Amino acid sequence: MTQPQPGSAPINLVQKLTLFADHWSPKTIARMNGYEFKLVKLLGDFTWHDDPDTDEVFLVIAGRMEIEMRDRTVTLGAGDLFVVPKGVEHCPHAVTECHALVIEPGGVVNTGASGGELTAATDQWI
Amino acid sequence: MTQPQPGSAPINLVQKLTLFADHWSPKTIARMNGYEFKLVKLLGDFTWHDDPDTDEVFLVIAGRMEIEMRDRTVTLGAGDLFVVPKGVEHCPHAVTECHALVIEPGGVVNTGASGGELTAATDQWI
Repeated sequence: MTQPQPGSAPINLVQKLTLFADHWSPKTIARMNGYEFKLVKLLGDFTWHDDPDTDEVFLVIAGRMEIEMRDRTVTLGAGDLFVVPKGVEHCPHAVTECHALVIEPGGVVNTGASGGELTAATDQWI
Repeated sequence: MTQPQPGSAPINLVQKLTLFADHWSPKTIARMNGYEFKLVKLLGDFTWHDDPDTDEVFLVIAGRMEIEMRDRTVTLGAGDLFVVPKGVEHCPHAVTECHALVIEPGGVVNTGASGGELTAATDQWI
C-alpha cells in the first residue's frame, strides 16, 4: 500500500493485523515525525541484536512475549509496554504467537547490525 | 513518581490508568529517545489548538473519542490510532469517558499555544 498521509484516517490495529501472517517482519502503519509505528507477529526465537542509535518501544497487543537481555529477561502480556534502551543487546522470544506494536525511528532494521536470515525489509507499509 | 530509567520494567497501561482520575491531564509513563508516552482520560470538550512543531499520535485504549479538525472530524474507538499532523488545528471531544495513549516529544503542552484553563503541567510521571 502507498504510504498514507498522516492524519488521513484512523488506523485500527486489529484490522491491520488481519492483513499479514508472516513472523518477524514488521509492517508500518503510521509515521509521526520521523518515527514509525510497526505491527509485528512474533513466534519462536529472534536474533540477538542491539540498536546503537535509538531506543525501541514494544507494546503487546495480544499474546505474550519475552525480551531477553544479557542481565535479565522481561515478560510482556497484552497492554504491556517496554522500552529497550539504545545500545542494549536483546533477543525477543514468543512461545506462542504474539502481536506487538513496535515504535522506533524510520529506517531502523529489525536485526540491528547483526543481520542474518530474519532481517526484514524496512518500509513495508500495510 | 520519579522518572524510571528506560528498560527498567514493563509498564502495564491498564494498571497505570488506575492511578489517576482527572481529565485532560496527561500522565507520562515512558520515554523513548526524546519522545513521551502519556496516558490521558478524556471527558467532554477540550480546547482548539495545534502543535506547530510536531505530529501527535492518539491511540485509544478504551471508550470512544472524536478529534474535530477544521475540515472534518474523525471518531476513534479502542485500538484505533490517529496521527494529527503538525500544524493542524484540532479539538478532541469525548461524550463518555475515554482512555488514550498520546505520543509526542517531551515538553509539548497539551493546549499548544492556545493556553486556557485546561492547560496541564508537563512531565507528570506516574
